[in-house]
Amino acid sequence: MRMPRRQTRPTFRAFLLVFVLCTLASPAVASQDDPLRSWNEGPAKHAVVDFVQRVTAPGGKDFVPEPERIAVFDHDGTLWAEQPLYVQDVCILDRIKALAPEHPEWKDIEPFKSALAGDIKAVLTGGGPALLELVVAATAGLTSAELEAMAKNWISRARHPRFDRLYTDLAYQPMLELLGYLRANGFKTFIVSGGGIHFLRSFAERVYGVPPEQVVGSSLKKKFELRDGHPVIVELPEVQMVNDGLGKPVGIHLHIGRRPIAAFGNSDGDLAMLQWTMAGDGPRFALLVHHTDGEREWAYDRTSMVGRLDKALDEAVAKGWAIVDMKRDWKVVFPFEKR
Amino acid sequence: MRMPRRQTRPTFRAFLLVFVLCTLASPAVASQDDPLRSWNEGPAKHAVVDFVQRVTAPGGKDFVPEPERIAVFDHDGTLWAEQPLYVQDVCILDRIKALAPEHPEWKDIEPFKSALAGDIKAVLTGGGPALLELVVAATAGLTSAELEAMAKNWISRARHPRFDRLYTDLAYQPMLELLGYLRANGFKTFIVSGGGIHFLRSFAERVYGVPPEQVVGSSLKKKFELRDGHPVIVELPEVQMVNDGLGKPVGIHLHIGRRPIAAFGNSDGDLAMLQWTMAGDGPRFALLVHHTDGEREWAYDRTSMVGRLDKALDEAVAKGWAIVDMKRDWKVVFPFEKR
Repeated sequence: MRMPRRQTRPTFRAFLLVFVLCTLASPAVASQDDPLRSWNEGPAKHAVVDFVQRVTAPGGKDFVPEPERIAVFDHDGTLWAEQPLYVQDVCILDRIKALAPEHPEWKDIEPFKSALAGDIKAVLTGGGPALLELVVAATAGLTSAELEAMAKNWISRARHPRFDRLYTDLAYQPMLELLGYLRANGFKTFIVSGGGIHFLRSFAERVYGVPPEQVVGSSLKKKFELRDGHPVIVELPEVQMVNDGLGKPVGIHLHIGRRPIAAFGNSDGDLAMLQWTMAGDGPRFALLVHHTDGEREWAYDRTSMVGRLDKALDEAVAKGWAIVDMKRDWKVVFPFEKR
Repeated sequence: MRMPRRQTRPTFRAFLLVFVLCTLASPAVASQDDPLRSWNEGPAKHAVVDFVQRVTAPGGKDFVPEPERIAVFDHDGTLWAEQPLYVQDVCILDRIKALAPEHPEWKDIEPFKSALAGDIKAVLTGGGPALLELVVAATAGLTSAELEAMAKNWISRARHPRFDRLYTDLAYQPMLELLGYLRANGFKTFIVSGGGIHFLRSFAERVYGVPPEQVVGSSLKKKFELRDGHPVIVELPEVQMVNDGLGKPVGIHLHIGRRPIAAFGNSDGDLAMLQWTMAGDGPRFALLVHHTDGEREWAYDRTSMVGRLDKALDEAVAKGWAIVDMKRDWKVVFPFEKR
């Protein structure tokens, strides 16, 4: 029923004013200014905010000077979706298929035979060495410029089989907000991935605002040479470093040279990185993303072939590290979801 | 003669005004604000300033966005004195001497015998492998914390034989100004050295304002392990990378992931880094420090065992790269000199 204007009483006006003021101050409106607005209120969000407030409070007992505010993020499964396959592996498989006509022998030898047949499980059961053989076949001999062009070209076109979107659209909205929130509070954010360092660098700055020099990953050895007087860097068929599992703290130590104060991961491959981060002095923060949302994303942990989360989950619970329950803690998962 | 006030004529007043204005604008006064005040006016300083002005001029044809303003500096002989021995080698020799009582066998086997006898030339003629053997003996098995503590302790006490000062006092004043000038103009400055990455990091931030994550150097392989549940990173007796000569562009590619637009070196060990930098698109800058001042520092180039500058000097002349003639171009060499 519409209230005739002349009947408006002072008490109603007062009520209206209070209502409007309350609305302006309500969470729904305030969330526009919340740097973590895609996070539901809950223990994970509160743990992050509490940590950041403590280390940035001047004069506080937990204050950390800006240069020491180093935060490291795993990539696959922590910053973007890693199911059904690590994206880089898809890129490698595509490259192997493209090169196959020049290598007729591949159809009879593993792991190429399985790769060309699209039998990814067979390749993965061959473990690290099988995958490495594919990486070497796909990239060794390329110059750094050729490798970069190949990665940029692939990532600008390849689409995720479930969502039919570019893989770079599958970066998690809450984690994009978290990266920005940390940087706004004087943190330097690094990606520390088991994936190939140059593959990641081909989009990390554009998608995450993380520049190439703050990306740590796996790599092959390289050599510098002059080709007709023109300097090139060439990929060699030999591993430089495997930046996964126990390799992550080593990669952090090599590239960053100081211990992070905050680490974010989602699988057992991140456990050593989290342990290394938490073993330092002063305030520390560790967070695991637990994939619990089969509808919006995927639900998997202890028995998954990709992104297994088993020992790290036990250790996180035992030590009280923050755990994101994706279904409970994230209002949206991907930027393209309707809000 | 003092001019009586009443005789002051308008023309004299005008002259006085012009004189005062000229004085205010003169180099002598302006030098207080000159970020490169320890550099004499000349081609080297002018080349640097011209380059920086071009790449930072918004809308100019040579403008380079801030994230791409990467500058790389060799360390020994470019940022601090490298004679009579690379400082890190002195540190290694001191460590070998300290460990000798635990290794009685060393007095009979090379390169330890020469090292303990102080016969550095004999060690250096053994080349890279001999030096590497000493590095491995001095550091393998140490944890990252032990290695850092050892380096920090040594650099805080060891003194240069000629100047009887801490080695860190022998950073070149003009280069400290240059680092600051570049950073004030949006450059990210990296040290790219053949020396050990962790040794350099133990003082690079304090002395040069270059944080650990912007130091690239040589390193041994490492492993992560839990010792009584406590995570440690341990040095292994195997080379991870030799970041010198042809290794410098590879180290830059691994750590920085994009091509620098400016490179500063002083020896043939920097030639590949300068070539790699200059081969990119857009505006580029390369500079060699030529040690020409036997009085204030040292004079050496084509035949020096430490810091040989031969091929790189020829290429710099042929290609018109900037060359610092230390005697001519630097007003002071070390910060402790009287000005």
